[in-house]
Amino acid sequence: MDTMSSTTKWNGDMSFTNETRGIASSMDAMPDFGGKNLGTTPKELVLNGMMGCTAMDVISMLKKMRQEMKSFTMKIEVSKNQDHPVHFKSATLFFYLEGEGNKLEADKVKKAVTSSLTKYCGVNYMISKTCKINFEVYLNQALIEKGIAEFIDPKN
Amino acid sequence: MDTMSSTTKWNGDMSFTNETRGIASSMDAMPDFGGKNLGTTPKELVLNGMMGCTAMDVISMLKKMRQEMKSFTMKIEVSKNQDHPVHFKSATLFFYLEGEGNKLEADKVKKAVTSSLTKYCGVNYMISKTCKINFEVYLNQALIEKGIAEFIDPKN
Repeated sequence: MDTMSSTTKWNGDMSFTNETRGIASSMDAMPDFGGKNLGTTPKELVLNGMMGCTAMDVISMLKKMRQEMKSFTMKIEVSKNQDHPVHFKSATLFFYLEGEGNKLEADKVKKAVTSSLTKYCGVNYMISKTCKINFEVYLNQALIEKGIAEFIDPKN
Repeated sequence: MDTMSSTTKWNGDMSFTNETRGIASSMDAMPDFGGKNLGTTPKELVLNGMMGCTAMDVISMLKKMRQEMKSFTMKIEVSKNQDHPVHFKSATLFFYLEGEGNKLEADKVKKAVTSSLTKYCGVNYMISKTCKINFEVYLNQALIEKGIAEFIDPKN
């Protein structure tokens, strides 16, 4: 699919209901910006998109490499600039994978994450233009890789 | 707040549950990428973030200008490139505002939208680095403004 779309509807104050392919979701501002914590903020949606985009790449690649995960969680931390437009200046994506030794190999996990964050992940590619994106990969609680998401611009 | 964070947890297949300041939300892939439509995709989260970020700017500015809206909805349409990393190449943000003549003035609506999309909106600023972002503003169903989101880079 080469095109995408979504809609949103204002509910009063800073609350919105999004509808995307029939799937409803909520947005709201923080209380200090007139919100009531009825949903994630627009910038938090982008944080979740940054995690999800690379996480789905990694799962897809590990599946092709016949790897088995017991669990997979992620965290993202970002810092913002001060002046307008306020945006992300630096981010760290933390990958936490768990699996049994010979079923989830460190080399394959490293390869999946670095491929995503240098070649495939469109959301992090877009954000990387204004934000330095670091990553750290933990396998069974041990740090196995760290680096910076650096992409080559696609030809078209 | 100068830092932000979020976490996500894999539920199997391509399904994830995000947790952001205690607020849960869902992500999933499209069926052709192994998903089951249990949530919006990571790129759709960014679409919603692009709408929400500018919508909240506009509401905040119109409130300061003592304007009253009866309804406010938005739509976003994007087209993507072909090669990896697949990302947004062009987007259009559609603003649909409704209000009574002297309570919601076209000049103020135009000013709010154009201020957001040239000066304040951090999410659209980030995405504008790789994507041409057009906008169209409708007041009581009449087109009152159209343009391109072009931002000046902040000093810090």
